[in-house]
Amino acid sequence: MLVLLDQTRLPAEEVELVCTDASALVEAIRSLAVRGAPLLGIAGAYGVALAAARGFDVDAAAESLAGARPTAVNLALGVRRAQGAYRGELTRSGSVQAAAGAALAAARELHAEDAEASARMAGRGLALLDELLPGGGHRVLTHCNTGALVSGGEGTAFAVALAAHRAGRLRRLWVDETRPLLQGARLTAYEAARSGMAYTLLADNAAGSLFAAGEVDAVLIGADRIAADGSVANKVGSYPLAVLARYHHVPFIVVAPLTTVDLATPDGASVEVEQRPGFEVTEIAAPSAAGAAGEAGGGVPVAPLGTQAYNPAFDVTPPELVTAIVTEEGTVSPVTAEALAELCGGSRRMSRS
Amino acid sequence: MLVLLDQTRLPAEEVELVCTDASALVEAIRSLAVRGAPLLGIAGAYGVALAAARGFDVDAAAESLAGARPTAVNLALGVRRAQGAYRGELTRSGSVQAAAGAALAAARELHAEDAEASARMAGRGLALLDELLPGGGHRVLTHCNTGALVSGGEGTAFAVALAAHRAGRLRRLWVDETRPLLQGARLTAYEAARSGMAYTLLADNAAGSLFAAGEVDAVLIGADRIAADGSVANKVGSYPLAVLARYHHVPFIVVAPLTTVDLATPDGASVEVEQRPGFEVTEIAAPSAAGAAGEAGGGVPVAPLGTQAYNPAFDVTPPELVTAIVTEEGTVSPVTAEALAELCGGSRRMSRS
Repeated sequence: MLVLLDQTRLPAEEVELVCTDASALVEAIRSLAVRGAPLLGIAGAYGVALAAARGFDVDAAAESLAGARPTAVNLALGVRRAQGAYRGELTRSGSVQAAAGAALAAARELHAEDAEASARMAGRGLALLDELLPGGGHRVLTHCNTGALVSGGEGTAFAVALAAHRAGRLRRLWVDETRPLLQGARLTAYEAARSGMAYTLLADNAAGSLFAAGEVDAVLIGADRIAADGSVANKVGSYPLAVLARYHHVPFIVVAPLTTVDLATPDGASVEVEQRPGFEVTEIAAPSAAGAAGEAGGGVPVAPLGTQAYNPAFDVTPPELVTAIVTEEGTVSPVTAEALAELCGGSRRMSRS
Repeated sequence: MLVLLDQTRLPAEEVELVCTDASALVEAIRSLAVRGAPLLGIAGAYGVALAAARGFDVDAAAESLAGARPTAVNLALGVRRAQGAYRGELTRSGSVQAAAGAALAAARELHAEDAEASARMAGRGLALLDELLPGGGHRVLTHCNTGALVSGGEGTAFAVALAAHRAGRLRRLWVDETRPLLQGARLTAYEAARSGMAYTLLADNAAGSLFAAGEVDAVLIGADRIAADGSVANKVGSYPLAVLARYHHVPFIVVAPLTTVDLATPDGASVEVEQRPGFEVTEIAAPSAAGAAGEAGGGVPVAPLGTQAYNPAFDVTPPELVTAIVTEEGTVSPVTAEALAELCGGSRRMSRS
């Protein structure tokens, strides 16, 4: 069995969600009880290990897990890794039990690697911040949630802000509330408060005023998939921030593990963007109520009945708007297909730090 | 007594709010039960007339009404107009009763003028849309609420969309939900649904994806104050749309009565932007509950307790990002201080239609 922190209940309640099979995990992923690029990979791998340990059809479980959220490349990667370990061991030893053990070992290895990658991204990201903004006293704007809740370690973009905070060089973290599901308000503010950071929450559309007032030194965000050309798919609302950052000459920095780079996706137009149900926009659900309900539309309508909503989960930022992509293996800036390919090819020559 | 539609209860309930004195109206304005630039002017004028009719101190009532929302220039103008009528008649006739009658007449006159202005803005705005987008089939993005709820007539930006709809030339109205108070979801969607428009609601931060996909032909918004240089103060989130519109070469059109132009405010930096309470961002209140409570923080917390929020009610879009300002007296494009001054000077030579 797999025990997860139900993120839909935060910050009101810290509730554990117990998944006894892969289909429960698929549901937890779809409802965003478990979310965030690196964590999805880890959860997917553990899901395969769970199916193997319980004697379910591992390939069927892997298939449904990998497809639970189409934009998140790490999810499919984590699933494939545990599935590969399972199949490899099964071929080698013929033992279903040993194969299940191999799947679990693969999941644990991914988990540990992610924690290490998180620490290295934090170090590289802080070095980049210090290089771009030599004065220190960084005022960083972030979107959605990219901290310890999404990672085996301290996260991606949030981990960089946390490193700046620990080094005494974070003046303020501006936290976009991140509609419609308020991951910024519910999760990032929760993590910022627990870390003792100076942080301020804002409605996403108030970010423009901060830029105009010169109150943002850098934008730090995560990524759900990075195409071969450097296009970045991330939580909806990231692209408007990139356009604002460009207009105001503010660095727009993407922090993501190398597994997020998907060379099989050639460009931004090739990224499949998940469309989520309209009720996330047409209804308002308080965090605890949302967790309790789970099914479609447990909230209070805020728009007239029958209102259609456009609710893409992600948007795509083209590489020309991205100042740098920070990975655990190195930082790419400027963002080009060649530099990304070289980084993914295992070269560490690209590293700036 | 003054009877208003309580906009905080929409769309769940159509509830009338009865104000028996000016201080109740001040509270209704502060809580946004009554809101929207033109309507605030009309309400302010009626508020003065109410104070006069009931024998209260008219100047004190005018002072508190005019200051209830500092960014909204129409509010102060409407108040001053009724107050001026009151004082003028009092000086002339010495009769308090006649002066109260004059204040009421001034409020009614403003109300009627606003309805007429609304119709003329709609005609001019539609002509501009047809000129900028000769193909027809307009897909218009709007923000906040600018329809009949805010006006003695059919509104400002929304009235233009409505005119396009009636002319069979509106393909879709994209409605920004408009956080934090969701005037787009609650009010604009309500008005769009009642008008039979094809409309789609979206979280504010999903607008970027629409622009990137080429799904927006024009942005139409209202204004709370237009400075002498053409800077436009409007609902927070307008400025990010202006930056996105510029980046995507999409016309950004402001529709507002001439009274919104405040030549005494020289530029955007001189606009006082109202900061609203943080609980509007840190708590979620369903529309009906919000109306019932009214006082600070009746909602469910969505962020950790103690979270500070940055919650400006408005932002300021500089004139270089505004394609055109449409008023009842004429359309200014490009937006320059000279063109605005000439329009306000009563010249109709600026009119494009």
